[in-house]
Amino acid sequence: MSNEFDLILQIASSSKTDASDVQLGIGDDCAVWNVGESRVLLAADMLLEGVHFDLTQLTFYQVGRKALAVNLSDIAAMGGEPKTALVSLAVPPSCSIIEMTSLMDGLIALGREYGTTIVGGDTTSHDGPLLINVAITGLSHSSPILRSGAKEGDFLFVTGALGGSISGHHWSFTPRVREAIQLDSSFKINSMIDLSDGLASDIRHIAEASSLGCILEERDIPISDRVNHNLSDDERIYHALSDGEDYELLFTVSQDDAEKLRKQNEIDVHQIGQMQGGPDQIMMKKIDGSLVELPDSGWKHSLK
Amino acid sequence: MSNEFDLILQIASSSKTDASDVQLGIGDDCAVWNVGESRVLLAADMLLEGVHFDLTQLTFYQVGRKALAVNLSDIAAMGGEPKTALVSLAVPPSCSIIEMTSLMDGLIALGREYGTTIVGGDTTSHDGPLLINVAITGLSHSSPILRSGAKEGDFLFVTGALGGSISGHHWSFTPRVREAIQLDSSFKINSMIDLSDGLASDIRHIAEASSLGCILEERDIPISDRVNHNLSDDERIYHALSDGEDYELLFTVSQDDAEKLRKQNEIDVHQIGQMQGGPDQIMMKKIDGSLVELPDSGWKHSLK
Repeated sequence: MSNEFDLILQIASSSKTDASDVQLGIGDDCAVWNVGESRVLLAADMLLEGVHFDLTQLTFYQVGRKALAVNLSDIAAMGGEPKTALVSLAVPPSCSIIEMTSLMDGLIALGREYGTTIVGGDTTSHDGPLLINVAITGLSHSSPILRSGAKEGDFLFVTGALGGSISGHHWSFTPRVREAIQLDSSFKINSMIDLSDGLASDIRHIAEASSLGCILEERDIPISDRVNHNLSDDERIYHALSDGEDYELLFTVSQDDAEKLRKQNEIDVHQIGQMQGGPDQIMMKKIDGSLVELPDSGWKHSLK
Repeated sequence: MSNEFDLILQIASSSKTDASDVQLGIGDDCAVWNVGESRVLLAADMLLEGVHFDLTQLTFYQVGRKALAVNLSDIAAMGGEPKTALVSLAVPPSCSIIEMTSLMDGLIALGREYGTTIVGGDTTSHDGPLLINVAITGLSHSSPILRSGAKEGDFLFVTGALGGSISGHHWSFTPRVREAIQLDSSFKINSMIDLSDGLASDIRHIAEASSLGCILEERDIPISDRVNHNLSDDERIYHALSDGEDYELLFTVSQDDAEKLRKQNEIDVHQIGQMQGGPDQIMMKKIDGSLVELPDSGWKHSLK
């Protein structure tokens, strides 16, 4: 969910100091900081009441869980192993100790599942919305998998099925940490990103960073069961492409590795297209064989 | 500035996972995470409009600078070298791009001075107060200096003079990063903390963590020129002990090292007392020779 202020952060990030061992600043799912022989991954994500959640619809436990889950997903998108989390909370007077304990419980329980320890943070009471910022660290055991590594001819894959997460699944999604590590250890993953804004939008980050276009195959895009089956086919594919908050991984591998990936059945992955052409050519081959440009918004109209 | 919700974070921090290489969780100025042979320091601090700052009194540049400075001070308090920062911003509609650029400029400029790179973060627009969270990483080149390492008989020192910072100096203070590294390389610093709440309050963290009491020498406490000279002596010492936001370092060394420290004049340090007795014995020897208990609040009254 980028906005105008992201740009400011981006400019800031380019101001590397000479003393720094920063291998990669802002612009990917995590930054990469070289510590001795290790590559430390760093990322932060913030959830705000009134923007990202509504406490009348959710439990505090769910909010805490998701605050960590989106960060775990960032580490997964680099093929890394999450390690520590710093949790900063701005707490309105309406939140009780019991509620905040429940929020932390959601965070801690998910952290335990993924070997991630809450090592600190900051808390402030204020007369404003509830805010949770998590800053996560992880380790990359091979090379961090960047958005920029896609090669011409690479096949595109996603873990799991897409769409419909916005109706509630995004509060309980499984960050693909284990899948990413398993993929990274068995295949050469050339590029990877986690799907937060939706396939039609996020594919552009890989395309731009890798200076390549792509063609998605409409018939191969896995549509989640969460997408209403009573909708038309066009409507259903629209949801799979545009809903966002799937937190599945989108990645590319060589044609050789794609063949091996299609043959394995340990990890639930789906081949959905191929990298080719220039970075402004984000195309979809429809089921009827026609080739259409894939806008990152206004989908319904362009599909009609 | 601790509050009831800090406790929740503290409980969370004790939930270490087996997989973790966390040497030290919450409870000191930074957490310590072992990465290979390196010791990575981690901390986070948040500044909130309406709680920590008032934009009618300050420039955005000052707010950005301080958001990093308090984090640098946390790294300094462990004797570490700051390295990277993740910056999360919640931005109200009233803030312009120019203002937010100015905020980042304040942050970046200070980062450059101390070899700290902004490597990422998160930004969200919302209808609430401006909030800046900085999560910092650093490296400890020797052993991290903890609050818990003070020994019976250790002498207490502070860098610089105390008091009066609340009138404005805390927006431009110098984080004692260089002083801490220099001290750590030349002396055996047994324990250290940065002074954020005030000497009378922060000394208790060293005392409690080290299970020791202390006696401060009133006549040796360096009172900053920022404290009004027209006040009575009792009033002035009160400010030095209680104002807070000095961001000087408070540390302890053995009697041998104290002697060496008193003889050097490269680093501006002042010996102010000695560790002795039980952790509930936080005493001050007044100029008239009497020994008084040092409450962490209500100072004025007890001094009269």
